[in-house]
Order: sequence, then structure tokens, then C-alpha cells
Amino acid sequence: MKKIRAAIVGYGNIGKFVLEALEAAADFEVAGVVRRNPNDIPNELKEYTVTDKITHLQDVDVAILATPTRSVEAYAKEILALGINTVDSFDIHGGIVDLRRSLDAVAKAHNTVAVISAGWDPGSDSVVRALLQAIVPKGITYTNFGPGMSMGHTVAVKAIEGVKAALSMTIPLGTGVHRRMVYIEVEDGYDFNQVAAAIKADDYFVHDETHVIQVDCVDDLKDMGHGVNLVRKGVSGKTQNQLIEFDMKINNPALTAQVLVAMARATFKQQPGAYTMIEIPVIDMLYGEREDLIRKLV
Amino acid sequence: MKKIRAAIVGYGNIGKFVLEALEAAADFEVAGVVRRNPNDIPNELKEYTVTDKITHLQDVDVAILATPTRSVEAYAKEILALGINTVDSFDIHGGIVDLRRSLDAVAKAHNTVAVISAGWDPGSDSVVRALLQAIVPKGITYTNFGPGMSMGHTVAVKAIEGVKAALSMTIPLGTGVHRRMVYIEVEDGYDFNQVAAAIKADDYFVHDETHVIQVDCVDDLKDMGHGVNLVRKGVSGKTQNQLIEFDMKINNPALTAQVLVAMARATFKQQPGAYTMIEIPVIDMLYGEREDLIRKLV
Repeated sequence: MKKIRAAIVGYGNIGKFVLEALEAAADFEVAGVVRRNPNDIPNELKEYTVTDKITHLQDVDVAILATPTRSVEAYAKEILALGINTVDSFDIHGGIVDLRRSLDAVAKAHNTVAVISAGWDPGSDSVVRALLQAIVPKGITYTNFGPGMSMGHTVAVKAIEGVKAALSMTIPLGTGVHRRMVYIEVEDGYDFNQVAAAIKADDYFVHDETHVIQVDCVDDLKDMGHGVNLVRKGVSGKTQNQLIEFDMKINNPALTAQVLVAMARATFKQQPGAYTMIEIPVIDMLYGEREDLIRKLV
Repeated sequence: MKKIRAAIVGYGNIGKFVLEALEAAADFEVAGVVRRNPNDIPNELKEYTVTDKITHLQDVDVAILATPTRSVEAYAKEILALGINTVDSFDIHGGIVDLRRSLDAVAKAHNTVAVISAGWDPGSDSVVRALLQAIVPKGITYTNFGPGMSMGHTVAVKAIEGVKAALSMTIPLGTGVHRRMVYIEVEDGYDFNQVAAAIKADDYFVHDETHVIQVDCVDDLKDMGHGVNLVRKGVSGKTQNQLIEFDMKINNPALTAQVLVAMARATFKQQPGAYTMIEIPVIDMLYGEREDLIRKLV
């Protein structure tokens, strides 16, 4: 069997778990890792090619973008244009339709496939939300996150001037309402209050109750556990009171990385273009023979 | 907007709820109802054509099969050959791959689409199971049903000689193990013990602990509520202890009917052939404009 050759682009928190997920998948092999500083080679990367340019890697079939959300579009366009499929876990809900349009044009022009927003939310939760909408068409879905560290929010905080280290915790208040608890270390010469105000004004935080707290060592607070409780109560046909709940307690970057790898596999079963996860048959995310998967899972 | 014209084939427990789901769906209209006795016209059918032959109905786009599972294949083949799409909720897990092959050939020959096993299990639960397998590839999924009435099992009991009326309850014992509690009225002239032995020997019951109990009036015991608790604990990449749970408390025939209607919609977005639900993008099950659905659900 010819294995799928995947490049990991970006080697932070998610990238490390993508490496593990690729190593654990029977149908993948690691084509290499692309990172800004290719001389920074931790132990687990010693057997792989580490470079600062994806064009330096051999025969890449798909690039798994483990970069900050805000640089996804630029990287994806560049890589799709090289004839390489991409997957990302772009997580700004309001920007998904635009990103899909933008990558769809590039992917179609270069006969490649992009799967966007492939994490757990947006991502696998989106598939569950769409499924619940199909089987209980009238009603309200509440997505309650946490308690747990939000990587997207944490990265957003780190990008703000004067932040030396950060951790953003998401606390569920029920019915889809959340509190953000942001713990930061402040760079020398910066004023905590100004930094805190900049965080609260950021797109990621402006809609939620946000508390910013200064601490000595953010690292001491870190735990990668996260959770979601997704609830829908509504109507099937004319029958009220259908109640469905989806609940996860997971290691956050490990799940995101696994979703990215599953969707990297799925790219090879789609026509050229850009897709969100709800547009892709779930069976395409799986390794195995089609009828055998149907026999075991349906 | 041209509406999808759907025929309901079979008008028992599920058929009645399919009618309600079609009436509640903005993109469907009822082409008519096909039943063995077309002179049996309850109040809610008075405004529709009721016939014993689908060929007597005008411009049918899709037939929703609300017949007993064991007659699905014959009906589906006949209707697909007429150039009409079909959906069914065939629920014998061991027979799904064969049914898919058989209908796939007929559907491709006649440029039509069949979606099979479109209920909640097999059906929407299958989509969840496949998704969990994709995002947590190593581990065990337990599907715990009930407590509630199993329609498939109840129909199977009713088909056994000597059974006048029946109700089969599914009781979850945990880790995917179930007890079947079968309540029956016995026809005059039949021996309860022989009838009970025939039930226990049936494919539907032979693998589970089954108790058959004779009662005076099965109808007094009926409640359409049902539930499922689907749990997976396993490994994403190399990270253990990922825990995901899917839980439903629902009206059983109402949910099955709604799934059938959602999949009837999805048939028009697939290439000719036969499909299980895990082979179909979830977005195709939904009514609405594509980018709008992505904006709201992803």
C-alpha cells in the first residue's frame, strides 16, 4: 500500500500531537516538518527532515497546517498552489465562509483539496450540530465549552503586545454562555491594565465576560484537558421534547491533531475545492475498506 | 421553489410520523400514500391520494419506505426501477452490506439513488459511531439502547405464528449488553411455550437474553419513548483516555421518520447508487442554502 505523505507545517502545541497521530496511523508517513527555525530539532524529530520551506520536502501529498489561525489562509494558498492538499483547524467562526471561498478558488485552480476548520469546534462538534439539526429540525442547540484551556484564545492573547506568557481558560455558564479567565505574565516595561484592556477588546474576547489576571508563572496552571457539552432539545416532525446530548472529556491538542489527520485522509476522496467537515462523508475520514467499515459501524 | 414530491409506502407506526415530518418540512409535498388496503383512509389522509400502487401517484420524486424491514428490498428494487429514489430504515445490522450491493446495482441501472438503513440505529447513531472512530481511532464504542420499545423487534415478534399482539422492550445492561423483554398476546389455539420458543430462536433475539411474557393487553404497555447512550473511550494519536458520550431521550417513530425525510432530501444530492448514512455529507441532509448552513452550524 502506498502511504500518504504528510508534511507538518508549524511545530507548536498542535504540531507535536499531529506527529504522534501520523506515527500512529497505518496509512500515513511523515514527509517532514516545516518550522520557522529549522535548527530547533527536539528529540522526537531527529529521524525526520526539518526545514523552513515545504518545497524542500520530497513528494508531499498533504500539508497539515498547525500554525496560528490567523496565518492559515496565507500558508494554505501558497501550498495549494504547489499542488499539495491542505488541512487546517482555522477557528474563527465568523471567518469560515470567507476562508472557504478564498481557498476554494485556489484549490480548484490547482486541482487540489483543502479541508478547513478541522478541529473539534469548529470540526467534529460541527458535524454533530449539523446532524442534530437534520434529525431534530426545530429547536435550540447549546454548545457549552470547558472548563478547559482554549488554544485559539491563548494564542490570540500571546499575540497582544506586552504579553510574555498566557493561558485562556473557558468556563461554561450554561445555555452556550461562557466566561473567559485569562492568566498572563506581563513583559517588563508594560502596564498590566493597558495590556488587559487590549485583551478584552480583541475579537476573541469582546463578546464574552472576560477576566484578566496577572500571575508569576503561567506554565504552573497548564492542563490540556478540555470538554464540551452540546445539547439540543426540539421537534422531529410534529413531536416535541426530543432531547439529545453530546459530551466530551478530552485532551484538547491530541483531539485536534487526530481530527486533522482524519481530514488529511479525507482530502484524497474529494473533488478539487475547499470544504468544511459537514460537507464530507464521515466514512471518508476513516482508514479501512469501505464495506468492512459499513459492516462494523453502520 | 419546486418542492420534492414524496410518496409514503406503508402506513403503520412509522408512516404516520413520516406524514407529519413531510407536512412540517418546507421543501417537501406529499405525493400520496401507498398501502395494502387503500380504502382504509384515516382522517389525516383525507386530503391525500391513497392507493395500493405507487404507479397510480403523480410525479413521485422519492419513495419513503415505511414497510416492515424484511420487505424493504423487494419494494425498493421495484420503485428504483421506476426511476424513483428510495429511502428505508432497514434495521438488520448483518444484512446491510448485502442490501446496499443489491440496491446499488438497481439504482445505477436506473439512474436513481437509494439511502438505506436511515433510522436512528442503524442511522444517525452510525454517523456518530463513524465520527468517534475517526477522532478516537483506538478504543471501544458501546451502544446501549433503551429502556424503550424496539419497533424492529416488535414487528419481528408479530410475524411469528401464534402471536396476536406484541411489544418488545430493550433494557440496557451496560457495555452494549441488552435484555429483551417481549410481551405478547397469544392467538387462540396456540401454545404459549411453543410461540415463546419460536421468538427466542428468531435472528432478532437469538443473541440476547430474552424473556417472553404473556399478557392480556399489550396495548396498555405501549410508550414510544426510547433512548440510547453511546460511549467511546480510547486513544487519539498516542493520548489515552479520550472520553466521548452521545445520549438521546426521544420519541422513537418520530425520530426515525424525521431521519427518513432528511435522507429523502439527501438522495437528490448524490450520484446514482445505494448509500448508507455514513457515506453522505451531513450538510446534504439539511434544508437551506449551503453557505448559510456553514455559517450557522460549523
